[in-house]
Amino acid sequence: MPTDPVALTADLVRCPSITPEEGGALVLLEDVLTKGGFTCTRVDRGKVSNLYARWGRQGANRTFGFNGHTDVVPLGDEAAWTMPPFGAEIKDGYLYGRGSTDMKSGVAAFAAAAIDFVNGTPPDGAVVLAITGDEEGDAVDGTTALLDWMATNNEAMTVCLVGEPTCPDIMGEAMKIGRRGSMTAFFTMTGLQGHAAYPHRAKNPMPAMARLMDVLSSRMLDKGTAHFDPSSLQVLTIDTGNPATNVIPSQTKATVNIRFNDSHTSADLTAWMQDTADQVAADFGVKVTMQIKVSGESFVTPPGDLSDLVGKAVAAETGRQPELSTTGGTSDARFVKHHCPVVEFGLVGKTMHQVDERVAVEQIEQLKAIYTRVLQDYFA
Amino acid sequence: MPTDPVALTADLVRCPSITPEEGGALVLLEDVLTKGGFTCTRVDRGKVSNLYARWGRQGANRTFGFNGHTDVVPLGDEAAWTMPPFGAEIKDGYLYGRGSTDMKSGVAAFAAAAIDFVNGTPPDGAVVLAITGDEEGDAVDGTTALLDWMATNNEAMTVCLVGEPTCPDIMGEAMKIGRRGSMTAFFTMTGLQGHAAYPHRAKNPMPAMARLMDVLSSRMLDKGTAHFDPSSLQVLTIDTGNPATNVIPSQTKATVNIRFNDSHTSADLTAWMQDTADQVAADFGVKVTMQIKVSGESFVTPPGDLSDLVGKAVAAETGRQPELSTTGGTSDARFVKHHCPVVEFGLVGKTMHQVDERVAVEQIEQLKAIYTRVLQDYFA
Repeated sequence: MPTDPVALTADLVRCPSITPEEGGALVLLEDVLTKGGFTCTRVDRGKVSNLYARWGRQGANRTFGFNGHTDVVPLGDEAAWTMPPFGAEIKDGYLYGRGSTDMKSGVAAFAAAAIDFVNGTPPDGAVVLAITGDEEGDAVDGTTALLDWMATNNEAMTVCLVGEPTCPDIMGEAMKIGRRGSMTAFFTMTGLQGHAAYPHRAKNPMPAMARLMDVLSSRMLDKGTAHFDPSSLQVLTIDTGNPATNVIPSQTKATVNIRFNDSHTSADLTAWMQDTADQVAADFGVKVTMQIKVSGESFVTPPGDLSDLVGKAVAAETGRQPELSTTGGTSDARFVKHHCPVVEFGLVGKTMHQVDERVAVEQIEQLKAIYTRVLQDYFA
Repeated sequence: MPTDPVALTADLVRCPSITPEEGGALVLLEDVLTKGGFTCTRVDRGKVSNLYARWGRQGANRTFGFNGHTDVVPLGDEAAWTMPPFGAEIKDGYLYGRGSTDMKSGVAAFAAAAIDFVNGTPPDGAVVLAITGDEEGDAVDGTTALLDWMATNNEAMTVCLVGEPTCPDIMGEAMKIGRRGSMTAFFTMTGLQGHAAYPHRAKNPMPAMARLMDVLSSRMLDKGTAHFDPSSLQVLTIDTGNPATNVIPSQTKATVNIRFNDSHTSADLTAWMQDTADQVAADFGVKVTMQIKVSGESFVTPPGDLSDLVGKAVAAETGRQPELSTTGGTSDARFVKHHCPVVEFGLVGKTMHQVDERVAVEQIEQLKAIYTRVLQDYFA
């Protein structure tokens, strides 16, 4: 009897696995995969639980890998949910619940596809599932921990498919062959507090911050590259917290996020922002500090065998040739790319992170079929 | 026996008259002034207590007025005070306490001067004291209420001297013949929230706010006028409150304060800021709202008889010819100027609104002597 990806999605949604809680999701998968013939290893690190599952011989010539996560983001405004967020209830063709889209359905679909595939016509090679419990959080002890453990234990993937939602609106319309880089800069501008009536005795940091944010956000970083949209810099917040209308504040803070393509590195952008900030601060006679957090550099798996393989399977099952996209937020593909060629394909992500997150039941079935076809074609 | 302005200051400091609490200060003054021959009327309005005192005939040819306040600002960090804030203790020549400088010593000095003067050689005219309990607060029911009541009751001042501290560092160095205007603008810039990875689906209000604040604070409003320093625009705060590093905020707020001289009116500046904000918002495709609070227009009593009278008395008692200043924050002179010519002179205001506010005992005596000489010369 084939493994039911909808039932498995529902079972996973019922596990309250808000990062970093394991919530029973990986225990459940370990059980299902073990029964399906996979050798499972829990690779926990710090507060995070991860699961590595392999069918076939270690060191096989060809190992197809899937990567995904079972952790979910918090519920947000819980009172606004019209369906139980961990209920996995199905209504009008949709299965509701936190993580139903992002990405318990993806994990269920590739787990079901992998189990049925290896138990159908056992391939000449290995199939690996690397599933983390921390993709939505810091992601420090998640997929990275799995890859570290794999390196130490001579485990490897030849290629990898990440099962994150990749389609904006219609099933099959897009896959991802890379991602932009993402970095965040935290600025603090410091002057000298004083009375608004005596500005010559104070040094207001606000005009310098306004100028810096204007200069940074006014620069067109690039016009896009072969595989990427233009890079984008967003001023996310400026905060001063000065409630008095007669006091010049001593300090103000701002946060800037950059999503950048392969014409930049975080190092180049850091240097540019630091130079700009220093210049503006000098012009205004105030002090500035900048802290940088790099979430990931940009990366791309150039169109080729792997994207062709996945694209062909998607087209066969949905009738749509997926666009090779590099848009969107970060994913764990940014870690996997150091290990092997990686692409991402999953279902429509429209409701992810939202109240009443839900997934079309039909798409879970389709996704399993696509993943199954990918495995068949890869080992054909 | 002459009225002791130091003892009266101490008695007033012992009244905990934090705005809008009367705290016993006006009751005390009413008692002292009544015994000194003044006709007193409590002119209370709303939560505010005020005191009007007149010696001499209503409708006299010449009426010299004093204006001041007995309310004080809050204690701030009470634990940081090294002396009891309502103790009026004297140490090393300084009398300590909240309001000792701003401006119970000023009120005590002009009350003592007025009582002794009218009881010495009774002048041909009247002396009026208009004392409010709300200068530090909203000032809606304070000196304005006194002036309203005076108009209704045929009470008038020919000229008025406000006893606020006017000397930055040295007794006698400055008097005020006017004040800059003060107004505050509250801006709200609204776009459309979204994920930082998908900026084309959002509309970030931050770049527009940065640009607007840069444009407003970059304009040199003027180079100063005959009696005024250059006008000054200060960005006081920008606040967004967006803690997420992957979310484009929908809204941000900023506050701008302008201290302006007689080359501007609040109406002109309002129109300029509204036009600028509308233009920037249109350029960036976001919405902006602006709210304006005008604390006061700029005003000046041009140098002449009144400033000469006060300046001469200051010079005679301190050896210093006071500068005719228009700097500093607002005062109730902005209301009095609608009624009659007004100037301000008081002692050194260095510690006002601070922890361990204190006044040099010697300066209280000097101030009484100056006010006495002003009265003598005015009625000579």
